[in-house]
Amino acid sequence: MIRTHTAGSLRKEHAGQQVTLAGWVARRRDHGGVVFIDLRDASGSAQVVFREEDHAHDLRAEYCVKVVGQVRVRPEGNENPDLPTGEVEVVADAVEVLSESAPLPFPIEGGTGVSEEARLKYRYLDIRRPQVAEAMRVRSKATYLANEVMNELGFVYVETPTLTRSTPEGARDFLVPVRLQPGSWYALPQSPQLFKQLLQVAGLERYYQLAKCYRDEDLRADRQPEFTQIDIEMSFVDQEDVIAVGEKLIGRLWREILGYEIPLPLPRMTYADAMARYGSDKPDLRFGQELVDMTDYFSGTSFRVFQAEYVGAVVMPGGASQTRKELDGWQEWARSRGAKGLAYVLVQEDGTLGGPVAKNLSEQEISGLAGKVGAAPGDAVFFAAGARGAARDLLGAARLEIGRRCGLIDESLWSFLWVVDAPMFEEDGEGGWTAVHHPFTGPKPEWSDNFQDHPGEALAYAYDMVCNGMEIGGGSIRIHRAEMQQRVFDVLGISKEEAESKFGFLLEAFKYGPPPHGGIAYGWDRICMLLSDGESIRDVIAFPKTASGFDPLTGAPTPITAGQRKEAGVDARPKADA
Amino acid sequence: MIRTHTAGSLRKEHAGQQVTLAGWVARRRDHGGVVFIDLRDASGSAQVVFREEDHAHDLRAEYCVKVVGQVRVRPEGNENPDLPTGEVEVVADAVEVLSESAPLPFPIEGGTGVSEEARLKYRYLDIRRPQVAEAMRVRSKATYLANEVMNELGFVYVETPTLTRSTPEGARDFLVPVRLQPGSWYALPQSPQLFKQLLQVAGLERYYQLAKCYRDEDLRADRQPEFTQIDIEMSFVDQEDVIAVGEKLIGRLWREILGYEIPLPLPRMTYADAMARYGSDKPDLRFGQELVDMTDYFSGTSFRVFQAEYVGAVVMPGGASQTRKELDGWQEWARSRGAKGLAYVLVQEDGTLGGPVAKNLSEQEISGLAGKVGAAPGDAVFFAAGARGAARDLLGAARLEIGRRCGLIDESLWSFLWVVDAPMFEEDGEGGWTAVHHPFTGPKPEWSDNFQDHPGEALAYAYDMVCNGMEIGGGSIRIHRAEMQQRVFDVLGISKEEAESKFGFLLEAFKYGPPPHGGIAYGWDRICMLLSDGESIRDVIAFPKTASGFDPLTGAPTPITAGQRKEAGVDARPKADA
Repeated sequence: MIRTHTAGSLRKEHAGQQVTLAGWVARRRDHGGVVFIDLRDASGSAQVVFREEDHAHDLRAEYCVKVVGQVRVRPEGNENPDLPTGEVEVVADAVEVLSESAPLPFPIEGGTGVSEEARLKYRYLDIRRPQVAEAMRVRSKATYLANEVMNELGFVYVETPTLTRSTPEGARDFLVPVRLQPGSWYALPQSPQLFKQLLQVAGLERYYQLAKCYRDEDLRADRQPEFTQIDIEMSFVDQEDVIAVGEKLIGRLWREILGYEIPLPLPRMTYADAMARYGSDKPDLRFGQELVDMTDYFSGTSFRVFQAEYVGAVVMPGGASQTRKELDGWQEWARSRGAKGLAYVLVQEDGTLGGPVAKNLSEQEISGLAGKVGAAPGDAVFFAAGARGAARDLLGAARLEIGRRCGLIDESLWSFLWVVDAPMFEEDGEGGWTAVHHPFTGPKPEWSDNFQDHPGEALAYAYDMVCNGMEIGGGSIRIHRAEMQQRVFDVLGISKEEAESKFGFLLEAFKYGPPPHGGIAYGWDRICMLLSDGESIRDVIAFPKTASGFDPLTGAPTPITAGQRKEAGVDARPKADA
Repeated sequence: MIRTHTAGSLRKEHAGQQVTLAGWVARRRDHGGVVFIDLRDASGSAQVVFREEDHAHDLRAEYCVKVVGQVRVRPEGNENPDLPTGEVEVVADAVEVLSESAPLPFPIEGGTGVSEEARLKYRYLDIRRPQVAEAMRVRSKATYLANEVMNELGFVYVETPTLTRSTPEGARDFLVPVRLQPGSWYALPQSPQLFKQLLQVAGLERYYQLAKCYRDEDLRADRQPEFTQIDIEMSFVDQEDVIAVGEKLIGRLWREILGYEIPLPLPRMTYADAMARYGSDKPDLRFGQELVDMTDYFSGTSFRVFQAEYVGAVVMPGGASQTRKELDGWQEWARSRGAKGLAYVLVQEDGTLGGPVAKNLSEQEISGLAGKVGAAPGDAVFFAAGARGAARDLLGAARLEIGRRCGLIDESLWSFLWVVDAPMFEEDGEGGWTAVHHPFTGPKPEWSDNFQDHPGEALAYAYDMVCNGMEIGGGSIRIHRAEMQQRVFDVLGISKEEAESKFGFLLEAFKYGPPPHGGIAYGWDRICMLLSDGESIRDVIAFPKTASGFDPLTGAPTPITAGQRKEAGVDARPKADA
């Protein structure tokens, strides 16, 4: 090592020792012939004193330097109690510039307001900021802890292939041409789902992997074309076993990284409850403002808008004092989500109801309303009426918006829960059914025999882990019997040919004594974001891409040349098959 | 869990207990009304006894079953001391078929001679074989231990991107079209080299990763298009620091998995020595038969063939008794490697020399020959003469072949060493130079200033870890100064444009105070193969591809449809650039 000590490790007990440090010039202060430099390395920073100005003459911000000097206790009054090394400083005898730095595109210290594009283009400078580097270290520690938990629980780490089979149905697959077999392409996997199930057929029983997954989709706010999941699959298990593993994993992470003891077992909520009470399959329980079902209350209403399959309400505390503009803003907000608007009444301080809706309601409807929804004088009540699903979605979103605008969310809280008993199927809008999870998800035991007769009611043996309103894991007990799998395909309208093309090799494997099995996958980027108090998964990815999949640092993706097309076999036609 | 106990955990102390097992029917023996079944699960196997034949009537090989029964000590004389559960058996009260199995394409137990194609197509059955599953478990354990060592040493696990920049010069890159930016492509990385160096510029100081790497190249015997390396990079270090980390890693793996204590520190050999003595940069030291340099010995020879830049010899013990056909076989062997042939003399039992070369040698040359090369009566001596590099290559290969044919290699030995001081450059055959490692490899300190003046002699600050004649790791101390990097590019004839296109973003990063750094990458597949006594890296890859990059299980790669081409933007032209 070039150094004898790390800067951040220096303490009073080193006083009098000669040390060699190596790191970066973080801050420089000139005081009449004496120059103070904060020398930063991965461990922290230490103050270095140059008694002769000329020694430090050439040192500019972010120069990489080696310093030889004596540790001494700082003169009284000069201690910095905010710094672990704040009681000492190093009096430099010699300094060597290991490499110089050009003027920085943005300051390392204290620089806020730097555009994300600039931060990503110079990510290697961005990561020099202690808080950014700390997120990388938290992720590393979390990765280690995850490996430790899974190892203790007897799981086998298996790397599954990332150059896999492309299928015509696999929209959003990234495709990869194969030079050695011109005209043939691999696909990058959206998840190791099929392989982890094959590993159960193979009898490994307990599989896990830190798996890189790929999705070539429209990048929404916080998505990346490549992302990481902790992928888990187990044989001979029931829902309880998979849930127990997840709670051990999450419990350990929060305990050892944040010192927070998650109360276990986690609460569970059925999907139906979550939708009814929170208008979401990933409810944020850090605040109340539950949805109130008003369908019965308005069953006899003469107000046309409320003559609907479902009428629901959510209360905005203090919302009655919103300006006209703010109330109009809510309409805009609702329309941007595809709704017609957001009906509301305002509960005045005297208990009477204001707002345009109120005059359409009967006296009886008005008089019981505030009590029914739990609104106090000064509150606003928002309504949604219409098809149950869409109306609840809107109210669920309004609830979150209310939580944000009214500061109802205690950011210091952790709200974990399992959402269970999701439906197996949902209507696809064209008279058919799609799988809510995926087509290998099994029915709850009580639906084993007859889910196909009641696709709209049948419940899946599935479970999602939710934290603070985010889904951080999702899984299910899988189907392992060919006969049941066929019934699911029949409900989904998946033809034999399509099933064969998409996952024929899994169906083939299931002919050879597949064990009952189930599993789960945790969104590792999201979990690490939560653990490091990040705002985006980009905060915990060393070299993330922008929302359009662009990497400002390397310039990827790029056009390719005709020579590359030819070499990679992009335009080759596959050999004619028999 | 469906079971109460794993099959492999049953012991005498369980006698009398009721247990529920779940696993696969491994073997079945019918003995007049009583049926014995070996029930196998991930933990091992146990014998299950069905007293009524009808209970076991339907159970065939590889059915997945659940058995409820009583553990009892086996009747005296029926113990199986080879089986951990051999003292007990389970008397079945009830059995439930969890899933049936179609007739197997090959037997799980004892099936040897199954083609690799069949094994890979039904890999999920292949992995049910205990020795195949064990290789997966060894790899998993090795992965865990590697994480443990690196964590203890303060390394930060960072996931680097796998959708990266494609460059026109990057032959053998897999390319990936990007739907959201039609006409633009990512490349899959051949290694995280550039990113791990950026992480040093970023100040993380100690990086590692279990990194998936990709190479679209002609697949030689034991290559895969995707492979895994343990990738390591460190700042402020010297060669000794990187070597010390590698020895800790390897030492732990061999100790904890094989119970073998590798003598540390590992021996080191210079590249020059390795080439001179073993004709290889990855010498197998498990046997002798070193090359003997005969150039001086034959400096005055009249035998034209030996009037060469280099003449060397290697001894084959007992080789004098080879048949004419065997000796001709060596010529064939040499020609298949691109040589003209392999000159030899046979040392007869009376000490005289036989073979066609002998009559071309002077009496003096003959008389001292056996002594000089260390050959005994009955041995053969092979010669190669010509350009030093090619001749040593041939002798090095002949030495390994001799080792195999004569059974000189003690397969129980572990021979680790570091090969150091490799040349920076080698001639590219067209009057120029190529980098022996890669263009970021630094010179040894004594060559810092003048490597460009003596490209053929300059030594790199590089180190390869070799085990049993295989390179299992390789790395170097990198260049971190722009001025030195430019001199390397100049020797390599890399133009500013090419450097900019290939790794412009790294050169840009190096403007901002890059620290001195170095690292290494270990071939994880190879290491796991050695640890699990495999013959091929395919033995330690769950779902490997064949030599042509084909996956017999999934059928990947496959042709894609016109719709897929369109959707993925394969044929889009990039937007015109300014």
